[in-house]
Amino acid sequence: MPNPSQYTNLNTIKFLMYNVHQTEELLEANRYAAYDKPSIDLLLDSVKTFCDKSLHPFIKEMDEKPSSFANGVITIHPQFESILKESGEMGLVAAMFEEKDGGLQLPNIVFHTLYFMMEAANNHVTGYLGLTAGAANLIVSFGNDFLKETYAQKMMSLEWTGTMCLTEPQAGSSLSDVKTTASLQEDGTYKINGQKIFISSGDHQFAENIIHLVLARTEGAPSGTKGVSLFVVPKKIVAADGSLGKQQVIVAGEFEKLGQRGYCTSHLVFEDSVGHMIGDENHGLIYMFQMMNEARIATGRMGTGIASAAYYASLQYAKERPQGRKLTSSGKKDLDEDQTLIINHPDVKRMLLFQKAIVEGSLSLVMQAAHYVDLEHISEGEEKGRYNLLLELLTPIAKTYPSEKGLEAVSTGLQVLGGYGFCMDFILQQYYRDIRIISIYEGTTGIQSLDLLGRKVGLKNGKVLEWLAEEIQSTIKEASAHDSLQFNIRVLGESLNSIQQVLGALMPHAQNGDFERYLADATIFMDLFGTVVMGWQWLKIGVSAQKALDTNDSTYATDFYESKLHTLQFFYKYEMSRCKGLSKTIMNELALTIDMKLSYLD
Amino acid sequence: MPNPSQYTNLNTIKFLMYNVHQTEELLEANRYAAYDKPSIDLLLDSVKTFCDKSLHPFIKEMDEKPSSFANGVITIHPQFESILKESGEMGLVAAMFEEKDGGLQLPNIVFHTLYFMMEAANNHVTGYLGLTAGAANLIVSFGNDFLKETYAQKMMSLEWTGTMCLTEPQAGSSLSDVKTTASLQEDGTYKINGQKIFISSGDHQFAENIIHLVLARTEGAPSGTKGVSLFVVPKKIVAADGSLGKQQVIVAGEFEKLGQRGYCTSHLVFEDSVGHMIGDENHGLIYMFQMMNEARIATGRMGTGIASAAYYASLQYAKERPQGRKLTSSGKKDLDEDQTLIINHPDVKRMLLFQKAIVEGSLSLVMQAAHYVDLEHISEGEEKGRYNLLLELLTPIAKTYPSEKGLEAVSTGLQVLGGYGFCMDFILQQYYRDIRIISIYEGTTGIQSLDLLGRKVGLKNGKVLEWLAEEIQSTIKEASAHDSLQFNIRVLGESLNSIQQVLGALMPHAQNGDFERYLADATIFMDLFGTVVMGWQWLKIGVSAQKALDTNDSTYATDFYESKLHTLQFFYKYEMSRCKGLSKTIMNELALTIDMKLSYLD
Repeated sequence: MPNPSQYTNLNTIKFLMYNVHQTEELLEANRYAAYDKPSIDLLLDSVKTFCDKSLHPFIKEMDEKPSSFANGVITIHPQFESILKESGEMGLVAAMFEEKDGGLQLPNIVFHTLYFMMEAANNHVTGYLGLTAGAANLIVSFGNDFLKETYAQKMMSLEWTGTMCLTEPQAGSSLSDVKTTASLQEDGTYKINGQKIFISSGDHQFAENIIHLVLARTEGAPSGTKGVSLFVVPKKIVAADGSLGKQQVIVAGEFEKLGQRGYCTSHLVFEDSVGHMIGDENHGLIYMFQMMNEARIATGRMGTGIASAAYYASLQYAKERPQGRKLTSSGKKDLDEDQTLIINHPDVKRMLLFQKAIVEGSLSLVMQAAHYVDLEHISEGEEKGRYNLLLELLTPIAKTYPSEKGLEAVSTGLQVLGGYGFCMDFILQQYYRDIRIISIYEGTTGIQSLDLLGRKVGLKNGKVLEWLAEEIQSTIKEASAHDSLQFNIRVLGESLNSIQQVLGALMPHAQNGDFERYLADATIFMDLFGTVVMGWQWLKIGVSAQKALDTNDSTYATDFYESKLHTLQFFYKYEMSRCKGLSKTIMNELALTIDMKLSYLD
Repeated sequence: MPNPSQYTNLNTIKFLMYNVHQTEELLEANRYAAYDKPSIDLLLDSVKTFCDKSLHPFIKEMDEKPSSFANGVITIHPQFESILKESGEMGLVAAMFEEKDGGLQLPNIVFHTLYFMMEAANNHVTGYLGLTAGAANLIVSFGNDFLKETYAQKMMSLEWTGTMCLTEPQAGSSLSDVKTTASLQEDGTYKINGQKIFISSGDHQFAENIIHLVLARTEGAPSGTKGVSLFVVPKKIVAADGSLGKQQVIVAGEFEKLGQRGYCTSHLVFEDSVGHMIGDENHGLIYMFQMMNEARIATGRMGTGIASAAYYASLQYAKERPQGRKLTSSGKKDLDEDQTLIINHPDVKRMLLFQKAIVEGSLSLVMQAAHYVDLEHISEGEEKGRYNLLLELLTPIAKTYPSEKGLEAVSTGLQVLGGYGFCMDFILQQYYRDIRIISIYEGTTGIQSLDLLGRKVGLKNGKVLEWLAEEIQSTIKEASAHDSLQFNIRVLGESLNSIQQVLGALMPHAQNGDFERYLADATIFMDLFGTVVMGWQWLKIGVSAQKALDTNDSTYATDFYESKLHTLQFFYKYEMSRCKGLSKTIMNELALTIDMKLSYLD
C-alpha cells in the first residue's frame, strides 16, 4: 500500500516566499524585527518535520476512522491529542497574534505558508487550529479586557479550542435570516437560544473547553444583517477563579460527510446557554467579516494544500508504474522494448504539469493575498488603505480559484492512476472527496462570485480594480526585459483588457438598475478574472526564475528555475487560452438564466 | 431523508428517440418488423416501472451495503436476486440478439435507451446485464455450435452471467502485455493460467454459473496483440448433460472502490482452469474489439445516466429549498419578503441548465451512435460500410464526452445543494463518487483521445471524417430554414472549420513521422471535437423542437419544445464558446509535454 512521503516541495515554497513575494524585504520592517531569514527558515523546517512525523502519517487513518458522535459527545482520532499539544507548544495559533496580545507577530505570509504545509500533509487538521485562531482573534480585536483575559491566552495555547457559529438550518448562507436569540440578563450576560449547523470542530475530547463565537439577535434588534450581534458562548462556563462549570452547549449530532472525515462537523443547540456580547450590539456581522475574509483565504489555501498532496501522490505513481510503450517514427510500438514508465507519455506529463501549474500558481496567489495583509500592517495612511482594498478585491478570487481548479487538479491526479485511482487502497480517491467541500466552505463559488462582481470590482468606483491592474502592469513591465516572456506579456495584457471590456458591456445593466442581469454570469466572470490573476502570478514566478537564471543564482538548481518557466508556458498554453471564450460567454446578450420559465427545467 | 423519485424524463427520452433520431422510420425496416411505436412505448413504460420499483429504491442502500469478499466468495446486495430474475424474464439481455440466435432483435437505439433508464435509476445494476450480453454476443458471433448451445441461451436468460477478463496486474490497458497462458490439451480444450484484475461482476451469489471470456496466449504465440486468443472459461465446468462441476476459477479478492460499490470488481486467478477457444487462434483482440466498441458506448451511456439522476436530484432540491432573496432594482434585498426558493437565483438556474444541456445532449449523442448501429444493420454494401465507420469515428467521443462532462455536471449538481451536497444523507455525493470511474472504464480519456486522433480521424484517409462533416452540414442545412437557429448555424459551422484547421496544423507532424508530437494534445483535440459533436446534437434537437412548434405538434407541451430551444442556446452560449480556446491551445507550437526534463515535475 503506497504511502507517499512527498506532499509539497519546500524549495518551491521558499522560492515563492523569498524570490517571488520578497519576504526578506518585508522582514526589514520594524514590526518583524524579531525575525530574519534564518529564523524563518528554521521555522519552516521545524513545521515541515512536525508535518512529516505527526500529521501526514495519519491522513488516511483519519479518513478510515472518522470522527463520530454518540451520547452527546463527538470523538475524534486519538492522534489529535498530540497534534493539538504540539501545535500549541510550537505557537501555531499564537503565530498570527501581535506581541502585545501575547502572540508571535509572525508575518502573515509565513503564517499561511506554515498552514499550507500542514494542509498538504493532512487537511483534516488545520481547521481545529485555524478556527481557534479566528475565534481568539475576534475576541482580541473586539472583546473587552475580561473576555481577552478569560479566553484569549487559553486559546492561543490550544488548551481551549474555538468555533464560529453562523449557519442555521433555515438560513444557510443567508445571514439576514439568523434566528438564534440573545436575551440580556441582569448581570450583563445573555441567554442564547437557537440551533447552529455545520459547525466545524464543534466538539471533541481534546480541549478542556470549547469557545463558540455565535451570531444571534438581541430582543428588538432590526431585521436582516443589521440586527445581528456576536457572542462568546463557552461550552463550559468559566468561573471567576478560572474553574470550569458544567457543559451548557448541547452537541445534538454530527454530519457524516463525503470527505474531511477526521474533521468533525457538528450540530449545536443553545438552550439558555450563557454568553457574553463582543463589542457593540448589532455589529456582529461586521466583526465576523474580519474573520470571514481571513477564513476565505485560508479555505483557498486548504484547497491548494490538498491539490499539492494529490499532485505529488500522482507524480510518485507516474514515476513507478510501467505501462505501454513510446511511439516509434512509424507510429507503432516496439514490442521488443520493455514497457515504459507512464511518466514518459505526453498525456501523463500534461496531466502532471496541469496539476503543478494549478498548485504552485494557487500557492503564489494565496501568498499574494497574505503579502497584502503584511503590507497593510506595515504601511500608514493612504497606502495602508490601498493594500487593505487590494486584499478585499483579491479575497474572493484567492478563495475560489484554488477550490475550483484545485478540484480539477485532484481529479486529474486520480486519472493518472487509472483504475487504481478509483480504489480505496490509494490516497487519490480521498483527496478527491476531501477537496469537494472547498468550493462550498465560507461562501460557495456562487456567493464569492457575487461578492467579486457585485461589490469588489466596484470598490471606490472601480479605483481598486485599477490599482490591481497597475500591480499587474508593473509585473508586465518587469517581464518586458526578458525575451523569454514576450508571449506571456502579450497574452496577459490582452486578457487584462478583456476584463475591462466585459465590465464595459455589463455596467449599463447595473446603471439601469438591472442588478440581476448584471450579476447573472458572475461565476463566469470569476473564472475569467481568476484565470487572469493566475496568469499574473505565473508571470511573476517567471520573472523571478528568469532573473535567477540570468544572474546564475545558485540557490536552487538550474532545472528548478527552468521548471518554473516551463510551467508558466504550460499555464499560458492550456489555461490562459480559455479567457477569450469566457469573455465571449459573458458578453453574449442572451439572458438565459433570467428570461426563462422554471418549467424548462423539468 | 430525501429519496428523489425522478431520475430521468420519459418525454425527453421519447422525443429524442422518435423526433430527433427518427426511430419510427427505422421500425419500417424488415429487420424490425416485430415492432411498432406502440410496442416500443409499452416496452419503455414497463422498463420504467421496473426501474421505479426494483432499481431506484435500492441505489443508496447498495452504496451503503456494498458488495463484499470473504472466504473466496463475493456477496452482492440481496436485491440483485430479483433484479437478475426479472431482467431475464423481461428479455433485457436477449433484447440485443438476433431472432435467429434466440434474441428479441430490438433496435439498438431502443436497447441503449432502456439501459440508460436503468442506469439513471441505479448505476450499480446494468454492468451485470451488459457484460453478460457482451460475453454472450462474442460467443454467438464467433463461437462454434457447441459453445453457442452450451452457453448463449443460459446467458440470455440471465441464469448465468458473464464477464470480460482483459486486464492483468502488470499490463493495465496495454493488452500487448497480456501474459495469461493457454495450453492445448488432447481433448481440444485449453488449460488457462494467469491472473486478471478489475474484473467487473467477476463473482456473486445469484447465478448458477459465471462465464468468463478471457484473453490469453497459446504456446508459441507471437508477441504483442497479434498473439492473443480468446477463451470461454466457465466458473464451473459444464458436463455433457448440462450439469455443473466444481468451481475452477479462484476468486482471490475484491477491489474496494470509491463508487459503484454495489457493483463488484474482482481479482480472479486461473490455475489450470479449463477453457475453450473462441474462433481462430491469435484473433482474440479482433473479436474483443467488437465488444469493446459496444462497451465504450455503454460506458458513455452510463455516465449520462448518472448525470441524469444527479440532475433531477439537484433540481428537486432547488425547487424545495428556500434561501436568500431576489435582488431589487436598488441592488439590495427586500428583507420583508420571505426567502425565495434557490431555483429562482440565476446562478442556480445556470447550474441546472448546464446539467440539463450535458445530460440531454449526451443522451442524444449515445442515441446517434446507436442509430448508426441500426442503420448499419439495415443497410447493404457501401452504405453499410459508411455507417459502420461513422460509428467507429463517433465511438471514442460517445464514450468520453459524457464521462468527462458528466462528471462536471454531477459536481455542479452537488454544488446546488451547498453544504448538504457534501453530506452522506443526500444522494449527490454518491453520484459524484459513482461517476468518477466512467472516464477510466474501457480505456481512459487519454486512450480514447489517442484512438480518435491517432486512428479514427484518419480512417479511409480522412474520408470518414468528411462523412461526419456531411452529416453535420445536413443538420445545418435543415436548421437554416429557421430564424431562431441562425446564431447556432454560424457557430457550429465555424467550430467545424476549426477542427479542419487544427488537423491541418497537426498533420505535418504525422507526415514527418513525429507521431508523439502529432498526438501530444490528443486529449484537448477530443475536448474540441466532442464539443462540436455535442453542438451538432443540440442543433438537431433544436430543429426537431422548432419543427414541432411550427407545426403545432401537441405531442408535448409548448414549454417542452421551448425548453429544448432554450437549452440549445445555453449550450452554445456557455459551451460552444470554448472551442476557439481549445483550437488555440492545440495550435500553439510549444511541445511542452515532450520537450522537457522529467525533473521539471519534482
